[in-house]
Amino acid sequence: MAFTVHDILYAKRKGLKHSSEEIKSLVNGYVAGDVADYQVSAWLMAACINGLDSDETSALTQAMVDSGETIDLSSLGGTTVDKHSTGGIGDKTTLVLVPLLASASLTVAKMSGRGLGITGGTIDKLESIPGFSVNLSKEQFLDQARRIGCVVAGQTANLAPADKKIYALRDVTATVDCIPLIAASVMSKKIASGAKTILLDVKSGSGAFMKDIESARELADTMIDIGRAAGRRTIAVISDMDQPLGLAVGNSVEVAEAIDTLKGNGPSDLTELCIELASLLCNAACPENGISRTQIEELLSSGAALLKFRQMIEAQDGDSKVLDDTSLLPQAKFSLSVYAKSSGYITAVDAERIGRAACLLGAGRSRKEDQIDPTAGVLLRKKIGDQIEAGEELAVLVWSGNISPEPAVLSAESAFSIGAHAPESKPLIQDKLGF
Amino acid sequence: MAFTVHDILYAKRKGLKHSSEEIKSLVNGYVAGDVADYQVSAWLMAACINGLDSDETSALTQAMVDSGETIDLSSLGGTTVDKHSTGGIGDKTTLVLVPLLASASLTVAKMSGRGLGITGGTIDKLESIPGFSVNLSKEQFLDQARRIGCVVAGQTANLAPADKKIYALRDVTATVDCIPLIAASVMSKKIASGAKTILLDVKSGSGAFMKDIESARELADTMIDIGRAAGRRTIAVISDMDQPLGLAVGNSVEVAEAIDTLKGNGPSDLTELCIELASLLCNAACPENGISRTQIEELLSSGAALLKFRQMIEAQDGDSKVLDDTSLLPQAKFSLSVYAKSSGYITAVDAERIGRAACLLGAGRSRKEDQIDPTAGVLLRKKIGDQIEAGEELAVLVWSGNISPEPAVLSAESAFSIGAHAPESKPLIQDKLGF
Repeated sequence: MAFTVHDILYAKRKGLKHSSEEIKSLVNGYVAGDVADYQVSAWLMAACINGLDSDETSALTQAMVDSGETIDLSSLGGTTVDKHSTGGIGDKTTLVLVPLLASASLTVAKMSGRGLGITGGTIDKLESIPGFSVNLSKEQFLDQARRIGCVVAGQTANLAPADKKIYALRDVTATVDCIPLIAASVMSKKIASGAKTILLDVKSGSGAFMKDIESARELADTMIDIGRAAGRRTIAVISDMDQPLGLAVGNSVEVAEAIDTLKGNGPSDLTELCIELASLLCNAACPENGISRTQIEELLSSGAALLKFRQMIEAQDGDSKVLDDTSLLPQAKFSLSVYAKSSGYITAVDAERIGRAACLLGAGRSRKEDQIDPTAGVLLRKKIGDQIEAGEELAVLVWSGNISPEPAVLSAESAFSIGAHAPESKPLIQDKLGF
Repeated sequence: MAFTVHDILYAKRKGLKHSSEEIKSLVNGYVAGDVADYQVSAWLMAACINGLDSDETSALTQAMVDSGETIDLSSLGGTTVDKHSTGGIGDKTTLVLVPLLASASLTVAKMSGRGLGITGGTIDKLESIPGFSVNLSKEQFLDQARRIGCVVAGQTANLAPADKKIYALRDVTATVDCIPLIAASVMSKKIASGAKTILLDVKSGSGAFMKDIESARELADTMIDIGRAAGRRTIAVISDMDQPLGLAVGNSVEVAEAIDTLKGNGPSDLTELCIELASLLCNAACPENGISRTQIEELLSSGAALLKFRQMIEAQDGDSKVLDDTSLLPQAKFSLSVYAKSSGYITAVDAERIGRAACLLGAGRSRKEDQIDPTAGVLLRKKIGDQIEAGEELAVLVWSGNISPEPAVLSAESAFSIGAHAPESKPLIQDKLGF
């Protein structure tokens, strides 16, 4: 090796650009145990302060991809697509989008994570369906995708282990919110997962990691660059996360809302986002075989998307009767309403506070080993722009655990702002990039 | 604690200024084991890139001082002084200066380190005197200082353990050459050592850590600020280290040269530096009781300084007959001369290459546990400005171990540059600060 760890750290300290060999040697050395935590953390800090350019970010991503297994989806034959959301409150888009895309003849073989933080991840949400199994072997995973066009499972392969190790270190060294590192982390898993076309849903707003549209655009552009450098069609949308998406925040309550949406009875913002994302992804994946927005809408109204969800639930040992009767999903033992103290219009619903309320009720976990309460959550009755009278219900808190709901009530109450005038309405999709 | 480690790291990542409480909590947490290596290394990297101002640097120094024992020299009654050199090749100043200062009625109770790098430290050099003991109890150390005015020992107390721990981490995370961190490290040990007046000899040039005078000045100023904030009279000189100091580089050969200097027969640059430093330190420590340069010179010519060295050697169980006959010091078994290949004037004697030659012969150690060869070293026959004929001796390499001298010969040869004209002479002391 022509350069030492010391050289690499010193170069980034001085703001110099790394070669891809340098980055590869740092990442490989870390995974092999030859480079210590304290060296990588110093490098991460230098990278946060002095930056990584597009070549360096791609090299970091590729080194993390190469650190583990990669999924070869080519044997599936179809048009493989994947979607990633940077995360937001009430974001159950995947639950709707995956069967919707499969009903449009795309193949979605998706590995997803558990949530750490405010609410559960997609895997946690799916597990609230009685019997649903997220633990598939690689063969089961690929076979299901081949048969029915969609599968969502936990990590059935050791994807990008370097990313996992580096992320754990970033978490304890104040180096999480750094765009090239976030982008490399997300994209390493997407690229290792094998889909040829990737749609990134970058959330922007008070309830998102990216608080403003400029940083959301920068993150989206960085991820698009990485994806394309790795030979994947990559597109992104910036979508609003100033208030929660839809009306339900939690686990089983979000599954119920996703089912309603697949039946055409979902909240308008969630429905709109799913149709728009599906349309963009279909056209990006098969530009020669364009599909109209109306055709997507028909996949929902005809029940074709719901049928795919039914096939997927059954293939993964879940009780598909929940699709006919969502009360078969785990139901909360307790509920408590939060009421408006004044009249007017809702001017803000702080997504982070709603999320915190859900977490306090048991919907999220603060440590990996924590158990979540699948029934816990917040059901919004009002969203931005709605008119409200003093004493009217703003939201209902639901849970089953032996907890004291006061902190959640305070958090939920404080999330709502009421003013004399309705605020100007903001588009749900704020930008589209990579088109 | 109102702030977390994460807050502290994030603040320095963003270039914000720390409160002294934040720095104290980081340092104390590290020593206590509550803050991990990987967190401190990330902070060190952020501090290197975004800087520490004078308040932060003083707070860091004080936190490191407070992490261990401090020596109270007030019981000694006299005027306590200390001197620190940032390190250079052939720098045996301490061996001359300590007895010289004691003969001027100052008290020097000095703890010193072993060398890691090119040649040994002061402690290693003193140990080449047969019988000389550097391991004193705190009581023996203070008692000797009280009785004869000077003592040089290894670390008899647990001074600034946080500095030791942080230094070890800097060494492996490319965060060594950072002026506030260097200054805090040096000053934490000086302040913990208790002297009321501190003279800093900051070396500048090819053989020094600070390669140019601007960075040497910045380091000196930073250390002066720290010393004064801690209530110590602190002054500094910048002295030239473009070529080795004196003619001897090694351990026993440097002791022999120091003895010659105490007898008034030393090389002119070393003699000049010792007289100048002694004069500056005497006048800084006792401004009301001025002492002239001539009086300092008389302390050398009268044998008063040599007598103090004799008392010190005897008090520390060394064989003081070496003062009368330096051939009683360990003598090298082998020697080899390096000759000039052309005629002209010496235009450069690269200190680093001479140092490397000495190290290759066994005078230094590359790992803490290495043994040094006390006899190994380089004796310069020519210095910058000297006239030379082709075939004349440039230097003599000496050693006793079973080594192959070729790499040392190459390094020593390549250190000398010969040109047609004598270069302009450069003052040995390039600047004085803090006066």
